[in-house]
Amino acid sequence: MKDIRLGIAGLGTVAQGVLEIIGRNQALIAQRSGVRLSVSRVSSRTAKEEIDLLGGRFSTRLEDLLADDVDMVLELIGGESVAAEFIAHALAAGKPVVTANKAVIARHGNQLLNNNDHMPLKFEAAVAGAIPIIQAIQHALVVNQFQQVVGIINGTCNFILTAMEEQGQTFTDALSEAQALGYAEAEPGFDIDGIDAAHKLTILTGLAFDTPFDFEALHVEGITGITADDIRFAQELGYKIKHVGIARCTADGIEARVHPALVPADRLLANVNGVANAVVVDGDASGQTLFSGPGAGGSATASAVLADVVALGVNDAFSAPPQAAGESRFLSIAQVRCVHYVRIQVQDEPGVFAQVANALSSHGISIEAAIQKEPADGQSIVPIVILTQNVAEAAVDAALEEVSKLPQVVGDIARIRVVSL
Amino acid sequence: MKDIRLGIAGLGTVAQGVLEIIGRNQALIAQRSGVRLSVSRVSSRTAKEEIDLLGGRFSTRLEDLLADDVDMVLELIGGESVAAEFIAHALAAGKPVVTANKAVIARHGNQLLNNNDHMPLKFEAAVAGAIPIIQAIQHALVVNQFQQVVGIINGTCNFILTAMEEQGQTFTDALSEAQALGYAEAEPGFDIDGIDAAHKLTILTGLAFDTPFDFEALHVEGITGITADDIRFAQELGYKIKHVGIARCTADGIEARVHPALVPADRLLANVNGVANAVVVDGDASGQTLFSGPGAGGSATASAVLADVVALGVNDAFSAPPQAAGESRFLSIAQVRCVHYVRIQVQDEPGVFAQVANALSSHGISIEAAIQKEPADGQSIVPIVILTQNVAEAAVDAALEEVSKLPQVVGDIARIRVVSL
Repeated sequence: MKDIRLGIAGLGTVAQGVLEIIGRNQALIAQRSGVRLSVSRVSSRTAKEEIDLLGGRFSTRLEDLLADDVDMVLELIGGESVAAEFIAHALAAGKPVVTANKAVIARHGNQLLNNNDHMPLKFEAAVAGAIPIIQAIQHALVVNQFQQVVGIINGTCNFILTAMEEQGQTFTDALSEAQALGYAEAEPGFDIDGIDAAHKLTILTGLAFDTPFDFEALHVEGITGITADDIRFAQELGYKIKHVGIARCTADGIEARVHPALVPADRLLANVNGVANAVVVDGDASGQTLFSGPGAGGSATASAVLADVVALGVNDAFSAPPQAAGESRFLSIAQVRCVHYVRIQVQDEPGVFAQVANALSSHGISIEAAIQKEPADGQSIVPIVILTQNVAEAAVDAALEEVSKLPQVVGDIARIRVVSL
Repeated sequence: MKDIRLGIAGLGTVAQGVLEIIGRNQALIAQRSGVRLSVSRVSSRTAKEEIDLLGGRFSTRLEDLLADDVDMVLELIGGESVAAEFIAHALAAGKPVVTANKAVIARHGNQLLNNNDHMPLKFEAAVAGAIPIIQAIQHALVVNQFQQVVGIINGTCNFILTAMEEQGQTFTDALSEAQALGYAEAEPGFDIDGIDAAHKLTILTGLAFDTPFDFEALHVEGITGITADDIRFAQELGYKIKHVGIARCTADGIEARVHPALVPADRLLANVNGVANAVVVDGDASGQTLFSGPGAGGSATASAVLADVVALGVNDAFSAPPQAAGESRFLSIAQVRCVHYVRIQVQDEPGVFAQVANALSSHGISIEAAIQKEPADGQSIVPIVILTQNVAEAAVDAALEEVSKLPQVVGDIARIRVVSL
């Protein structure tokens, strides 16, 4: 039996989940793994008397976690710079660290993982909560070349889009409901603008394609522009709109992008609803696997944190940093090739569809599918909805620039990329 | 860098997949894991000149795989007794073994895992092909008490039921198509009678509930009794029919059963179609996670085999046998409580539904939902379809025995359990 005495930084929901799991399942974990977990020290800005620290000594000073009676440090304070500094400090003090902090890993992971002391740093909980997607990529699918990783990795966005689809809510109403239920923050930008998903995709991209984490290389869009109309038209075309992170390995370089996308309705990923997360991984040997589950929540995230702790406890040797060999080539979004969904509002005049089609065609874009409806009573404006063939983003940019200048076109043109799965 | 020289028993599709992956991804695997894989020896009953053995020496004698130039043995010959004997022999000769053989692990795994020499034996590929469900249970979710494991773990059954549902095929036609496509054997009983799924569920049950493997404790049914009518009625009630393995931990004991079941149509598991497999795991901390992917196929299975090889290569310490402490109590199927779908063919006479309801009620069974249709033109026989409330199997047995004696009841009564997810 190996004893691991933890120092826990933070007393938020994840830390509370960790304490509860250890309190409840300590004997079971020891029986299964040979690792006996205990809590030596806990640190937080303010004490919370109501939380059982399982005998851990409380301190408001983070550095007290680096005492001799701590074998491993859990960084669960969140935020970015203080957490990154603390992790570096803990590693330098010879403590292996487990964190659930996606921002820190995405932005500081390269340096922290390549720390001079070769101390292990693990972060399964940083991506998709309870879903063991990092373990899947690093262990279970280790013998695969990965072609593509596609994930619904922000529960707030997925909740909002699901509510818009299933209940016909507007974006604003769905966001309010998410906030009321605690699934969205009062300041929701971090989630709905795609930053949180981009942190996670940065990590998945680095691991899947054996390249350093490069948050700046990602193209990032949120869901604020998605309308009920687009969701309805996508449905008619056989798709659902999901907010996804996509990393692909192409002959020209790596694509890494976060944006709303049309997902074929008959694929499992399209049926991942509410706050659930899911990640699809395409391996050259494994074929396509999907992993889904709770992407957030104190208890689910704590389950992943403690899996890392146990793995370190049994001398898991798989905590190697992502490979930093050579320069990775990321594609700019202009170079990315996709099928595009395009919705154009036009004055209902004869020949307008042909003019749009001509404008697309002059940029080498042909139309794979289209919806054009009669105007509603008393309306003179109608939507034209088009799915293009697979085409480079730059061509779509240029073509839609031209389309937007047609005299019949009214307002902004909506465009959403389509996922190929 | 650690060299692992493999001895491969068998030259079937999985062994060929292993050779192809090593041939293609050897450098990548070494770069990621620090483990360099090579093939020292290959054994099969007959040589296959067209297969590249990557320099491995061929022999028709299994025992040649136990030579000094072999660090680890892959048992990929299939079958049961010869394979079990060979694994025992290899372990006794000091060779760690990786196998994809579900029958051997389900029926001989307790002895083999508890071998006197404490040699590791790993078997990720034995359950659900490329899906890392064993790693999920043993590593990623190791800190969880599991409440339930529910899996679609036989691709043949899932292909047949999907074809019946989506194309309205009869069981016989769907089976023929599966055979034509190579998804079912000429002698399909092993798959369609549930034996293959039962081997896999035996393994999942042992691992999830920390109990020895006990194939005999399972209740096993196949899909030969499922009719197009049942699939249609299930649809009307909001369900799909899937062949599943279910292991649950209840206050009274462990349930472990393989049978067709109604799965709520809005759950992800109900949307796993064709030959795909999927396993849902309910953990007390993680919540519900789902893992899906190819459940068979040479390349996908080989991906899982080699993940085990790499894990052993990096000194994965998680190859502990399932805990054999104490006697596990399995529930008999008569004790299992479920919602039941019941379809009764009756002569269309006034009051017949009431008589059926009374018979159920006299055994303490109330009705949650029902479908009763007008007879088709010229027909006097109509189906009555009922969903019961959650009730012990024994009560359903007794009630249906009574119902079957009603003078209006014609032919056999169909009953299918409902999964609670």
